[in-house]
Amino acid sequence: MTLLPSWKDKALFTPGPLTTSQKVKQAMQRDLGSRDTEFIAVIQEVRRRLVALCADPPEYTAVLVQGSGTFGIEATLSSVVPPDGKLLILINGAYGNRMAKIAAIHHIPSVELVFPEDTQPEASALESALDSDDAITHVAVVHCETTTGIINPIEKYGEIAKEYDCVYIVDAMSSFGAYPIDLKACNIDFLVSSSNKCIEGVPGFSFVLARKTALTATRGFARTLSLDLLAQWEGLEGDGQFRFTPPTHAILAFHQALLELEQEGGIEARGARYRQNYDITMDTMQAMGFRPYLEESRRGYIITSFYYPRDPNFSFQAFYEHLSEKGYIIYPGKLSHADCFRIGHIGRLAAGDVKALMAAIAETLKEMQVNLVKVPVG
Amino acid sequence: MTLLPSWKDKALFTPGPLTTSQKVKQAMQRDLGSRDTEFIAVIQEVRRRLVALCADPPEYTAVLVQGSGTFGIEATLSSVVPPDGKLLILINGAYGNRMAKIAAIHHIPSVELVFPEDTQPEASALESALDSDDAITHVAVVHCETTTGIINPIEKYGEIAKEYDCVYIVDAMSSFGAYPIDLKACNIDFLVSSSNKCIEGVPGFSFVLARKTALTATRGFARTLSLDLLAQWEGLEGDGQFRFTPPTHAILAFHQALLELEQEGGIEARGARYRQNYDITMDTMQAMGFRPYLEESRRGYIITSFYYPRDPNFSFQAFYEHLSEKGYIIYPGKLSHADCFRIGHIGRLAAGDVKALMAAIAETLKEMQVNLVKVPVG
Repeated sequence: MTLLPSWKDKALFTPGPLTTSQKVKQAMQRDLGSRDTEFIAVIQEVRRRLVALCADPPEYTAVLVQGSGTFGIEATLSSVVPPDGKLLILINGAYGNRMAKIAAIHHIPSVELVFPEDTQPEASALESALDSDDAITHVAVVHCETTTGIINPIEKYGEIAKEYDCVYIVDAMSSFGAYPIDLKACNIDFLVSSSNKCIEGVPGFSFVLARKTALTATRGFARTLSLDLLAQWEGLEGDGQFRFTPPTHAILAFHQALLELEQEGGIEARGARYRQNYDITMDTMQAMGFRPYLEESRRGYIITSFYYPRDPNFSFQAFYEHLSEKGYIIYPGKLSHADCFRIGHIGRLAAGDVKALMAAIAETLKEMQVNLVKVPVG
Repeated sequence: MTLLPSWKDKALFTPGPLTTSQKVKQAMQRDLGSRDTEFIAVIQEVRRRLVALCADPPEYTAVLVQGSGTFGIEATLSSVVPPDGKLLILINGAYGNRMAKIAAIHHIPSVELVFPEDTQPEASALESALDSDDAITHVAVVHCETTTGIINPIEKYGEIAKEYDCVYIVDAMSSFGAYPIDLKACNIDFLVSSSNKCIEGVPGFSFVLARKTALTATRGFARTLSLDLLAQWEGLEGDGQFRFTPPTHAILAFHQALLELEQEGGIEARGARYRQNYDITMDTMQAMGFRPYLEESRRGYIITSFYYPRDPNFSFQAFYEHLSEKGYIIYPGKLSHADCFRIGHIGRLAAGDVKALMAAIAETLKEMQVNLVKVPVG
């Protein structure tokens, strides 16, 4: 099996790993010593740029943690909730449920407020839960539930969390870099995202953006060594190094990705490109007769869930494989109660790529002899 | 700060991340979907090749875990020791101590047998400890303690562990790929290593080679979600995927590295190259007057610790920087009671690179006006 790059890779319409730029990948053509001055400078620059995207540096800080986004979430939950703390989790999808699983395995007392996957958690429910249970010290929610693509109103929850003096944790895995987020305005104490999402780096690490005073108040709470958030931060602040071998190549790629985010015009401009990808997808898919799972007001421009066509000729596996052969990777669904597939709008993809995908989908439907009820565009 | 590759990188005489081949880095010039067929095939191929390096496939299996080697060690210790288990750790350096730290944070009862950093843990001490404490269920040791470069006799410990019916865990982080290891002959149940060591891949994940029956006997023991070894294995065996986003690029690089290991002639041939790097280093360094920390019979050919020269003109920081400017990265010491620096012999480096480093060291000593008492070669 030879795997060296010798052809154009398939375009990834997924929630990540994403299609990245050539230069981002080229930045990995180097071997740097993990404790060498040059690499330490790269880490600091990456951390500085991350904070600058969403907060004021003196009050906030960035911690990089090896592993996928889930590692970052587990690092946060298992490091910041004290032994006598209690965590409230707002859940409307698989990633909210995953936080509940993490709390359970670490024996962190938790309250789960569970909502249907096609609706946002109600702020009023959060308020009454906090009102009726003084023991709750921490509130956690997912910003963009990748399960459906729904965007949850994190600013509203943050106001309530603050009112009840709770530490507020946001899983912004899929949204950070695509939606402007102001940590202070949202009262966020800990925000978690990962290298292979909307910053458009490659997978390899997660990062936590933290309010410094909230982070330094967690001494002694960590339940693991590798995922000890405060110790990791102290290492990065101390000698500037990771405590344990960092993914040097992924960090070099991420540094380049941050430069390209700036060149593109920052989060606003990137969000606008993704939004255009989303608009083209929605217009064309709906014109072909596909039905989105979420109602429009709840949809984000990160990823969209579509119902399977009702035609018995449709099989997701065959649909996926036809598109894959044409050079396009879409994503299966992850819903509990509905048959859906997903199309991502993020990564180094623009209007032309999306139109090409749309043409491939139209062609595939013909090949599979799948008929959809057509609806007018717009 | 521009970091794109435009010059020759410094040669890394470190314990990792290491200098890797151009083709290993080129293998990362692709973006693959983490749930796509092609990538799933790569994962399976990597797992198959890892097992083939040290064991018979039907009895043994490989689990890949995101994060550095320490993540793999923590995944193993926190996933395989049952709630009523007790872990004995043989310690003669920083990585043995790190296992003790991991056991402590997970409240795993443990016995630590601590030996001086310049000696191997005594097998007789292990035997009497197991003889006097029936509660001990697991034994763990580091094969090559990177602290000093000492090689511990893992086969001997394995015999004793088996005699006392203990599960045997070996941290072979720095040795796997350089020293032939037969899991069965050594009675090893779990061996942990990482992508950026002697297989010569890039950093990003660790891997655990496990006896299947030992692994499947650990159900319900995991103390974290991300580092749950059995769940990770079940994912890889089930749909062939990582449970959580894998470092796709690092895995592509590792696949290429495994091919190159085979092309080089396997572990024996790679070990011979490293041994030659070591021999040249030892001969030249001792001829210059440097004194190795370990006596010869205990030294491995992975990494060597040398005492600082006694000349007051010597400062490690200046020595390091002089060499770095010349294009060579060496490694600081990590000893508790002696001032040493380290030179690694592993990675994509051969005799010519080592001779160039030796010449740079000789030149640096002159520049720093450091005088060593010369001893005859050989």
